[in-house]
Amino acid sequence: MSETILSLNLATTRGSWGFAEAVDGCLRHGITAISPWRDQVHAIGVAEAARMVQTNGLRVTGLCRGGMFPAETAAERQAKIDDNLRAIDEAAALNADCLVLVVGGLAGSSKDITGARGMVADGVAAMLPHAQACGVKLAIEPLHPMYVADRACINTIDQALDLCEMFGPSVGVAIDVYHVWWDPRLAAAIDRAGQMQRIFAHHICDWLVPTRDLLLDRGMMGDGVIDLKAIRAMIEAAGYHGPQEVEIFSAENWWKRPGDEVVQACLERFRTVC
Amino acid sequence: MSETILSLNLATTRGSWGFAEAVDGCLRHGITAISPWRDQVHAIGVAEAARMVQTNGLRVTGLCRGGMFPAETAAERQAKIDDNLRAIDEAAALNADCLVLVVGGLAGSSKDITGARGMVADGVAAMLPHAQACGVKLAIEPLHPMYVADRACINTIDQALDLCEMFGPSVGVAIDVYHVWWDPRLAAAIDRAGQMQRIFAHHICDWLVPTRDLLLDRGMMGDGVIDLKAIRAMIEAAGYHGPQEVEIFSAENWWKRPGDEVVQACLERFRTVC
Repeated sequence: MSETILSLNLATTRGSWGFAEAVDGCLRHGITAISPWRDQVHAIGVAEAARMVQTNGLRVTGLCRGGMFPAETAAERQAKIDDNLRAIDEAAALNADCLVLVVGGLAGSSKDITGARGMVADGVAAMLPHAQACGVKLAIEPLHPMYVADRACINTIDQALDLCEMFGPSVGVAIDVYHVWWDPRLAAAIDRAGQMQRIFAHHICDWLVPTRDLLLDRGMMGDGVIDLKAIRAMIEAAGYHGPQEVEIFSAENWWKRPGDEVVQACLERFRTVC
Repeated sequence: MSETILSLNLATTRGSWGFAEAVDGCLRHGITAISPWRDQVHAIGVAEAARMVQTNGLRVTGLCRGGMFPAETAAERQAKIDDNLRAIDEAAALNADCLVLVVGGLAGSSKDITGARGMVADGVAAMLPHAQACGVKLAIEPLHPMYVADRACINTIDQALDLCEMFGPSVGVAIDVYHVWWDPRLAAAIDRAGQMQRIFAHHICDWLVPTRDLLLDRGMMGDGVIDLKAIRAMIEAAGYHGPQEVEIFSAENWWKRPGDEVVQACLERFRTVC
């Protein structure tokens, strides 16, 4: 039986821990994999973050996040691509398994969803040579359809894989259960991703009923209605046995608790319900 | 050019009008089609509601709503089917174009989404003979994926059409732009629905950015980011030229305004942005 490990996405402990505190906290609890956000890395400095990762033998399962490609003017789109090139450098410095791409929603006040999706394809194409030169994989994360307007116009695994097919093997998908659990084509799409060998990350949390906020009310595994074991089985059957990365945005609950309590809950739920 | 008319879904004026006030309000503003909710019909009585519809020559574009099939026990599921049979009778009494089905989410505390979807198919099958005997069409409404847990586990037009294919021509889809506008397969799915001649209703409103509540923060047409004209063009190209039904759940905005103001806004936006 495979020994899947837990990775802590540092959004989960954002309420109490910066990068350095999170590294210390993970080490205290025996967690050896993390996935930081760029603002957390910038706050301590890329070089210092990379030093802490290397010194402590941590695995970085992803850097969050690149993307956000659509914009109304060519100059704005280029500025976003430039920022993505810097994100690639940071992912390389951290030796991250991938740079996670949250691709962006509609361009400004435009209602042209097809146009926005085209800008995403153009953006990935523009950053791909530098990513390949740096050995950084790009993980397109399809986001839940409720984010299509303002965060990501790629909303299903199939749609992300269609995009992956336009590029080489260094562009894959990050599968976050929160975003995809509803999809009637979930099993087929995960199988397809496995056939393509493009599953680069597996994020977990839970869907609460009721959900009180579209962005910041994600649940701890086991507190909601997602069949986490079933989705894990699909992902493992598709050949992915990498870490499961816990990523919980929870402004009114987990972000108000001490990091140690959050991490202990993650580990306990990871053992019992994931 | 086709003269598409507006139908008022009476959820839109729920904040200030019951059934009778809404009928009076519609007549005052020249609106000749409505779509009431069952609780609104029950409050005045089915016979009286039907009399008002007939006397005033109103078209009822749909009765909201049947469905809600999944449940943990066979007895509960049968009780839901029994209620759906009563809904069919009410739709027949009102001479409604269709009974709209919001199919229901997960069964109780179950996480079995596939099982819930099976219960939906079973539920539609169980009510179909009575619907056919009464001449009532059933319109499955795919709901936005953010409602999969608690309101509807049918979340795309394609998925609804797969269900329609199991049944005869009296089972079709209600296409609500709010629920489907994000779908990367939207154009193809609408085309498929047209080929099957199963488009039974076209609901409109808008997606606000930000959306502050998952259920009760829908926007007036033109106040959000949905390209309503583009979706209307797809639906008309697929052969549907029936009424566009305005359905807006808006606890903090439109439900707090007088019905006449709401209806005037609907008519003005219908002329300009739909």
